[in-house]
Amino acid sequence: MSNWFEDLGATLDMVWHRLEAGLSEDGAAARYPAFANVGVNDGAEARIVRLRGVDRDLGRVEFHTDLMSDKVDQLARNPCASLLIWEAPLGFQIRLRVWATVLSGAAVAHLWPDIPPPSQRAYGGMPPPGQPMAGPEVHERAIDPARLAVVICAVQAIDTVNLTEPRHHRALFQRKDDFAGRWLAP
Amino acid sequence: MSNWFEDLGATLDMVWHRLEAGLSEDGAAARYPAFANVGVNDGAEARIVRLRGVDRDLGRVEFHTDLMSDKVDQLARNPCASLLIWEAPLGFQIRLRVWATVLSGAAVAHLWPDIPPPSQRAYGGMPPPGQPMAGPEVHERAIDPARLAVVICAVQAIDTVNLTEPRHHRALFQRKDDFAGRWLAP
Repeated sequence: MSNWFEDLGATLDMVWHRLEAGLSEDGAAARYPAFANVGVNDGAEARIVRLRGVDRDLGRVEFHTDLMSDKVDQLARNPCASLLIWEAPLGFQIRLRVWATVLSGAAVAHLWPDIPPPSQRAYGGMPPPGQPMAGPEVHERAIDPARLAVVICAVQAIDTVNLTEPRHHRALFQRKDDFAGRWLAP
Repeated sequence: MSNWFEDLGATLDMVWHRLEAGLSEDGAAARYPAFANVGVNDGAEARIVRLRGVDRDLGRVEFHTDLMSDKVDQLARNPCASLLIWEAPLGFQIRLRVWATVLSGAAVAHLWPDIPPPSQRAYGGMPPPGQPMAGPEVHERAIDPARLAVVICAVQAIDTVNLTEPRHHRALFQRKDDFAGRWLAP
């Protein structure tokens, strides 16, 4: 077995290795995954988020958002969401199907002091995100720790594709069998 | 008005400019957007696609997929999908909410000769994409023009965010008023 992508265990190791790189490496693809959920008109929405936590033992990842953003209500209605990471240099696509739970208030207040001041400014502006405004200058920035929300993404399945030639490799790892992994047709 | 992101019309021009760059420039972010739709368990799915068509006059974009891929059935059930592009150098996020229609067979057969041979190999492998296999070596590549499907994405809304300091800019452009545009709180 010469290449990591030819082995299920090594592929799963690579997934978590790249996710962890998203926390520690400036240029890592996993620093800014796409997060998709079910939103307007019961259609799919997607936007970039900043990865803030990775826990392989618990099988979860985290990001932060504004408690008043649309996706908080959307996730309460439908928590089945996905994170997508495209590792271009590896030709490796990582798709995480997750169950997303939003925490706020006392449950996350301990995180506030560790948020750098420039990032703290993302919580508290008025009107709240997504509300209509007469012009950009109407928006008032403010800092309100009560607006911090943490989205806990419990990974239900990991779907990977590696585009190496002459053969692509696709694998699926599921929580229900402790992420043992199986091959899928690419 | 000194900066494009301070003007709704110039922002919309930039969206289409960057989408068109996805067709012509190797390194353009829009070459490989994330496509999100409603899939397994009525949750959101996302994966990278290769942009294949952009038509500002009709307000639509296109990509290709395997007719036997899961997303074809998923889009027949729920065509409300999204495309996401993150233009890192500009700090500019482009979100397209689309109505996706899948064409195949005679309607797309004229496209086949223009698909480069290496890409033609993406259509025809067995088992079909996403099916379980005992191992990667079980997969047989083949070329079957009947497997080509074109996903036509009719843009319903464009949601943009520009992260320039000291003020972020968010705008929404909707088909229902011919993409006139309005400001939203970022």
